[in-house]
Amino acid sequence: MTITAPARPATEKVYRTELSPVSFLRRSAYVFPDRVAVVHGEWRITYRELEERVNRLASALVAEGIEPGERVAYLAPNIPALLEAHYGVPAAGGVLVAINTRLNRDEVAYILEHSGARMVFVDHELVHLVDGSDLPTIRIDDTGAADDPYERFLAGGSPERFEVPIAGEEQTIAINYTSGTTGRPKGVMYSHRGAYLNALMEALESHLRPDSVQLWVVPMFHCNGWCFTWAVTAIGARHVCLRKVDPTLIWELIDREGITHYNAAPTVHLGVVTHPAAHRVERGLTVTIGGAPPSPTLLAKMAALNFTPVHVYGLTETYAPYTVCEPHPEWESLPDAEQAQLLARQGVHNIVADPIRVVDAEMNDVPRDGKTMGEVLMRGNNVMTGYFDDPDATAVAFAGGWFHSGDIGVMNPDGYIEIRDRKKDIIISGGENISTIEVEHAVCSHPAVLECAVIAIPDEKWGERPKAFVKLAAGQEATERQIIDFCRERIAHFKAPAAVEFRDLPKTSTGKVQKYVLREQEWSTSRSMT
Amino acid sequence: MTITAPARPATEKVYRTELSPVSFLRRSAYVFPDRVAVVHGEWRITYRELEERVNRLASALVAEGIEPGERVAYLAPNIPALLEAHYGVPAAGGVLVAINTRLNRDEVAYILEHSGARMVFVDHELVHLVDGSDLPTIRIDDTGAADDPYERFLAGGSPERFEVPIAGEEQTIAINYTSGTTGRPKGVMYSHRGAYLNALMEALESHLRPDSVQLWVVPMFHCNGWCFTWAVTAIGARHVCLRKVDPTLIWELIDREGITHYNAAPTVHLGVVTHPAAHRVERGLTVTIGGAPPSPTLLAKMAALNFTPVHVYGLTETYAPYTVCEPHPEWESLPDAEQAQLLARQGVHNIVADPIRVVDAEMNDVPRDGKTMGEVLMRGNNVMTGYFDDPDATAVAFAGGWFHSGDIGVMNPDGYIEIRDRKKDIIISGGENISTIEVEHAVCSHPAVLECAVIAIPDEKWGERPKAFVKLAAGQEATERQIIDFCRERIAHFKAPAAVEFRDLPKTSTGKVQKYVLREQEWSTSRSMT
Repeated sequence: MTITAPARPATEKVYRTELSPVSFLRRSAYVFPDRVAVVHGEWRITYRELEERVNRLASALVAEGIEPGERVAYLAPNIPALLEAHYGVPAAGGVLVAINTRLNRDEVAYILEHSGARMVFVDHELVHLVDGSDLPTIRIDDTGAADDPYERFLAGGSPERFEVPIAGEEQTIAINYTSGTTGRPKGVMYSHRGAYLNALMEALESHLRPDSVQLWVVPMFHCNGWCFTWAVTAIGARHVCLRKVDPTLIWELIDREGITHYNAAPTVHLGVVTHPAAHRVERGLTVTIGGAPPSPTLLAKMAALNFTPVHVYGLTETYAPYTVCEPHPEWESLPDAEQAQLLARQGVHNIVADPIRVVDAEMNDVPRDGKTMGEVLMRGNNVMTGYFDDPDATAVAFAGGWFHSGDIGVMNPDGYIEIRDRKKDIIISGGENISTIEVEHAVCSHPAVLECAVIAIPDEKWGERPKAFVKLAAGQEATERQIIDFCRERIAHFKAPAAVEFRDLPKTSTGKVQKYVLREQEWSTSRSMT
Repeated sequence: MTITAPARPATEKVYRTELSPVSFLRRSAYVFPDRVAVVHGEWRITYRELEERVNRLASALVAEGIEPGERVAYLAPNIPALLEAHYGVPAAGGVLVAINTRLNRDEVAYILEHSGARMVFVDHELVHLVDGSDLPTIRIDDTGAADDPYERFLAGGSPERFEVPIAGEEQTIAINYTSGTTGRPKGVMYSHRGAYLNALMEALESHLRPDSVQLWVVPMFHCNGWCFTWAVTAIGARHVCLRKVDPTLIWELIDREGITHYNAAPTVHLGVVTHPAAHRVERGLTVTIGGAPPSPTLLAKMAALNFTPVHVYGLTETYAPYTVCEPHPEWESLPDAEQAQLLARQGVHNIVADPIRVVDAEMNDVPRDGKTMGEVLMRGNNVMTGYFDDPDATAVAFAGGWFHSGDIGVMNPDGYIEIRDRKKDIIISGGENISTIEVEHAVCSHPAVLECAVIAIPDEKWGERPKAFVKLAAGQEATERQIIDFCRERIAHFKAPAAVEFRDLPKTSTGKVQKYVLREQEWSTSRSMT
């Protein structure tokens, strides 16, 4: 069976081509056909092969009946099949829905249902998550062998250039579901245009070059791997896949594959840089940090290993990174602690984004004093086109012509923003706002602390007070009293934790602490005690 | 007098901002306000100051009556005022017409007339070029002092943020007139969108970083400095101005200002790398070469100085660079001559361009054999929106939905193109096509030759035959016979020059050899001789 479709045709305008990241794969396959594009264990896929596999996927999807705009779901770790989906699904005219693999079966079923996915590709280790679904399902054994059902699916397509033209660059390329810690997950729509511009931006901000080698630590299902699925391909660099975030394996690959770049949340980076195999890398690594601000400890350890951090901030709704903490050369002469403090700020709008704002309840900009808290707003090419099939939620998020992030931050005199909290996390104690992040920074600067999370707990007198959950570093000890006293020396007394509990922190698949788990525990306990 | 206009407003879509390179200046002024943006002799302009000067220019232009879409002309060397025009004119809603300063008064008058320029800014050394014009004229003394008429004009504007919103990103930002060696010059229109995408591409392809320092060798009036006027600002790097291309001064600035990047045609590069002051630069320089292919000699000299060449090719109609000769690591192990041959090819479409084509008269792609000649075609975001006020010429150039470059090239088996000639330069000898560039390469590989140009001369028997004009390297000697014999050992006998003349080559302001000058001389002589 061969399905033919025209190559991406000329629009009527000679001077206009609709922006789409699919063109990046086409170009790299044209320019660097024999360069290794993807490494997965012993398996190496050149750019020519990658494009052929993508053509096979796209043409087989169309043969399967996928119509322009229809959704195709994936449940997979960071393997070649999921990278291929980032090109093959849009080349088929479809919309990629890469689902978080840490969700449970009900959550997955909700997303499959809500997105209206027409079919689902699922990694062999995750098949239980689609049990009971009546969607056409293709299992990915991730072997690359002819009897792998995914490979059989590709074999049904054609390696010839195949691309269903898009109607326009604002068409949806992917839907990424939010984590849904409050209410049902929402489907965040990315456009071809947004994905294209973000990819160019990431390549610039992370200094990607054709000889770069990206290790796939951040999940590709998470904001399409912060759009690096497209950025790394755009520049003709190499993807190194990783089924599982395992610091031992990460260090093996850093050495064996000559890794130059990887992205992760601070907790994951911490696991890497504190691992026994950690060592200085002479060629240097550029590591992008997102999901939470890097601690001074993390930055110091990175410097010792010759890692250059790029600190970014954003949300699923902003294609992941919206801001970057652009470093200034003058900072290098400052004391380490001060430098770390500057680098831990979320920073400024990236090169393709509009200026970010921090506003009060009336949408007036807060003063640039580094103190007045307000909600963070964004807009422009770096913002989702809306929530899929949810005009009400979109209207709320876009109220007043700006995307409301739900993050509370301050604007510093130099125009760099600093996130103080999620709107729902902020602690209101005796009428004062307390940023849980500020308290966490104080707790984490205690030398015995590896990581911590602070939430509001109910308090009869003050309404709410902060409680810290602390994981100590290996071999370290500290008491509740010591931690509290340590904090009271550093921040206002009313901001210091009222209680400290030592435990492992519950985390999402992307390494973010699940504060709602801690909160549920505390508030249900408290309530039952009243 | 204060004119106010809204800051670039939200479009109706929260997720869309019209692409415009003016946003790059806004961002760099926001992120790096105290960083030096522009160096001009002893004068240093920070990004904050640059934005304020641009706001002044834009608001003063509007106060002067410039309406959206109206043209503002400039005649200036690479000085701060011309860089400012690249932001201030579009921020006023206007269209920049930066005129080639080597033109004569009649040619300038034609462009002022044809473009419908509403006013003209002219450098104090070029005032004679607008003598007799009745347009409002602002003289630029290039002193930065309060009594400089240009500075007085800025003083009339306001430093507050000022920007007339554009109706859409396809609106014209600049008109660049072709050199007009055949017929009248044509006005090539660039859009905000095209300029924006090209700037991001240049930053990626030339590896610009925020700590880069660009020396302004290529004229800013030439395709807006190959769009580097916007690219360097986008990344927050530094512009170093240069009134005059003088290798002595270039070497002084390379050392004094820590230059990391400059762009030029090969003849200019040759002047730099063969200059007595030339020396190895430890930090390295990235030098973009366009206008003609780099010779093996030039590449070897660059390598010795630690210069990394980026060879690009394009036309005024393609925002300058359309292709880049993307190097492959494997080439590094090849013998120097072979490497140079590969690097001298024009290469592949850049990261924001559509694939380039080489076609026969019926617009069918020629075989990828490195031999069959055809016309080079381009399309997409890297192509002009058309010729200003010349729908007929636009229709001819865009025939069949592609831009016809008028360049004759071949497609190599690896997909890299090689330009063999301008359509009008190609020599037809006994029914065979001879590429003047191929003959030039043969002549230039003679050790005594510094540079050369080959044109067709009339021949009774063969119709046309090649003649070489040669400039010998300092202190070198060679005879006509020696050059011809040398060539006959390297290329087919019928391609070797029938005659050789030793002389300085006539050049355009951008360092391109003016073959038409040589041709006029030869053909008028010949004609008068028949």
